[in-house]
Amino acid sequence: MLDLPYLNLPRRYQMDEGQFVDLLIKDAHVITMDRAGTRYQCADLAIKDGKILAIEPNITFAARQVINARGNAVLPGFINCHMHETLERGLVEDLPLMRWLEEVCFPIDRAFQPHHQRAAALMSQLEMIRGGITTFVDIYRYPGEAALVAEQSGLRAIVCPQIIDEPQGAGETLESNMMFIEQWRNRAPGRIFTWFGPHAPYSVYPKTYQKINELAKQYGVGIHTHLAETENEVEQFLQKYGKTPVQFLEDLGVLGENWLVAHAVWLTDRDIELLARRNVAVVHNPSSNMKLASGVAPVPPLIAAGVRVGLGTDSNLSNNNLDMFEEMRLAAMLQKLILKDASAMPVETVLRMVTSDAAACLGLADCIGSLEVGKQADLIIVDLHAPHMWPVLPEPKSNVLEQIVYSANAGDVLTTIVDGKVLMSDRIIHTLDVVETEMLVHEATEDLIRRAGVTL
Amino acid sequence: MLDLPYLNLPRRYQMDEGQFVDLLIKDAHVITMDRAGTRYQCADLAIKDGKILAIEPNITFAARQVINARGNAVLPGFINCHMHETLERGLVEDLPLMRWLEEVCFPIDRAFQPHHQRAAALMSQLEMIRGGITTFVDIYRYPGEAALVAEQSGLRAIVCPQIIDEPQGAGETLESNMMFIEQWRNRAPGRIFTWFGPHAPYSVYPKTYQKINELAKQYGVGIHTHLAETENEVEQFLQKYGKTPVQFLEDLGVLGENWLVAHAVWLTDRDIELLARRNVAVVHNPSSNMKLASGVAPVPPLIAAGVRVGLGTDSNLSNNNLDMFEEMRLAAMLQKLILKDASAMPVETVLRMVTSDAAACLGLADCIGSLEVGKQADLIIVDLHAPHMWPVLPEPKSNVLEQIVYSANAGDVLTTIVDGKVLMSDRIIHTLDVVETEMLVHEATEDLIRRAGVTL
Repeated sequence: MLDLPYLNLPRRYQMDEGQFVDLLIKDAHVITMDRAGTRYQCADLAIKDGKILAIEPNITFAARQVINARGNAVLPGFINCHMHETLERGLVEDLPLMRWLEEVCFPIDRAFQPHHQRAAALMSQLEMIRGGITTFVDIYRYPGEAALVAEQSGLRAIVCPQIIDEPQGAGETLESNMMFIEQWRNRAPGRIFTWFGPHAPYSVYPKTYQKINELAKQYGVGIHTHLAETENEVEQFLQKYGKTPVQFLEDLGVLGENWLVAHAVWLTDRDIELLARRNVAVVHNPSSNMKLASGVAPVPPLIAAGVRVGLGTDSNLSNNNLDMFEEMRLAAMLQKLILKDASAMPVETVLRMVTSDAAACLGLADCIGSLEVGKQADLIIVDLHAPHMWPVLPEPKSNVLEQIVYSANAGDVLTTIVDGKVLMSDRIIHTLDVVETEMLVHEATEDLIRRAGVTL
Repeated sequence: MLDLPYLNLPRRYQMDEGQFVDLLIKDAHVITMDRAGTRYQCADLAIKDGKILAIEPNITFAARQVINARGNAVLPGFINCHMHETLERGLVEDLPLMRWLEEVCFPIDRAFQPHHQRAAALMSQLEMIRGGITTFVDIYRYPGEAALVAEQSGLRAIVCPQIIDEPQGAGETLESNMMFIEQWRNRAPGRIFTWFGPHAPYSVYPKTYQKINELAKQYGVGIHTHLAETENEVEQFLQKYGKTPVQFLEDLGVLGENWLVAHAVWLTDRDIELLARRNVAVVHNPSSNMKLASGVAPVPPLIAAGVRVGLGTDSNLSNNNLDMFEEMRLAAMLQKLILKDASAMPVETVLRMVTSDAAACLGLADCIGSLEVGKQADLIIVDLHAPHMWPVLPEPKSNVLEQIVYSANAGDVLTTIVDGKVLMSDRIIHTLDVVETEMLVHEATEDLIRRAGVTL
């Protein structure tokens, strides 16, 4: 047992004699991302029972585990609001979109089995832990694999089984989704959430959307779907129904505040107004939208209309990494370029899109997204001593946000903590096995390519 | 002395008894980037007197130093064709361009002293070594500092003293540039090159450009300048001279194959034709062009016209890091987005823009840019065992290029070698002191802010 002195113990946190906090993080440059944007040049964080107990200078609680942040940045763990745990990263690149889909993606999707999904989930969750992502929203097939791996990895997950009416793959039904929700709703409460995952208005029937909406209300869960990703999708809806996909869902009477829509690239002013009025949350995926030549989402108008906007990586098929730093930088730079305005999308805005605003997108603003006493201890330590992060000025003029948004990358995350549990420290992963997963991923990929009959 | 057996010694490389190669790299996934695009699933590289002596499987030369690449990718070191070693990374962000220039950049530039430049050069060269850049083209003030630091860092450098006629800062004269060339031309021959660095047609007099062009021919050196970076610049030339900046230089009779022009964002078809006809090389800087809202350079038409195109990071003021992986990914994704074509700018094209094509841009295609017997040993080892690089398929279907372009970042470079000298191995820098530089950078930055009187 440690026997640390109780010097400087803030009175309001006084604990019983002999009581310990679970984790103490010392000497941190703290970026809380609370409403006021509070930052500390040098403070400590005490964590107990998975929650933040205190953030102040010179905390001297006795602690079961102490991490010295060495002056590095401590900030809320990043939230990846839209991704698919896929396996086939970088197998074939730079094909025209339709050839890529028909010759590579669709055959692979048809051949996809649960053991491939397990490998994909392990690979993705390893990568996310290494990149400082503490919460992710996954929408894909065989959701049980994603959830099982999340149980082990320690990440906070919103798992959305993919529902498709046409062409329906194995398990992509409303019934499977319901079964999955029933099965998992109490298994890791508050950490592994299960939502509905209707794929998109062009692949899911209107009636299914309406059923899902009713069921989501009954279960008290969210709905995650793709919406208005490509110009072609919008054109097809205009031709077929005389209305945009957003207006189409509005007229079905389904849109609501438990909706999280991915992409939302091609929106009319009226669409933006509708999303705002129904309090629908939007995920912006800048890498994917660039790489697939989808277009540029109207993010500043969405934010101005009061829509909650988070960032997502999309899958490793269309990104290709799961690096939220890159998404932040691109979210900023893409709008600057398109709007011809170097002041568009300032650093605090984009950092909120992966922390506090992202938490609001998921309906989890009370639990995560900022470092505040009483919230869950989901946080990361980012290296400020790497040459590409210099210079770092002292508070109150600190440029830490600027360096994190414009200079950092996933490799700069030293430590990743969820619910107070250390998933990675000093780049060492504690919950998953990197070497074993590497072998598994390569075996699964070769097996998948063979089954799909894809020629690379 | 090591005493390795001479098993499998290829006859054509037979060395005298008792002779050693300087460095042997074992078990590498070699991406040569030679003309044929030769790759080896598993080969060794022998290096002697700074040059590549052999690339083949199972080399068993006796070697003074052996590096086990552990199956990771070995490829030519990256060439950063345009950057400025500046100090004030991330100090103030997201201002409109003119406010940023007038309130931050210009005051800082006026206050800039040689000791600031030394700190900036140390910081930049540390970052470049860590990111796998082995050659860089620097254009800025106090070029002696960049060259002195390059002497120590071991990087290959093309140092271009910045010449400005209006408004001229300390040392920004043609005479200073000549003196610098005289002073450095034989100091580190073949590694530290000295060129002319006229800033841009709007800040340098036509007569100066003509003198520079004559002198560059006499000295046998290159000319590096900014050209057609912003729409505003082109508009001003059209108003003032009735011609584009490219046509303006053409009419001065100065453009030639020793010219390397940075940015070239706003080009007419006629400009592209002129650049091709005069065999002028172009540096594309996608991050900087996005972040400063400059626009999108017409890279595919330039390449189609036969223009040599390399990639650059620009300065850490406008990027903000010096990560060539990011520039590659953006060069690819930006064209896909703008051309609405997911097949634009395939991975091999962009990888050549930081290796073989970049070397051609600098007139160094015979020495660097690809891994071939007889060329200088400028190479890097990139980690393929990191989760975000999975899956890696075996040759001949290997997707290593895809993973390097779309998934990797500067933190994935394990080892950086220039002229056969190991500047970094397994992320440890051997030629510069990281801790000492961190202190120096922070002292210099605070001093610079104080002298410039900038309010942050």
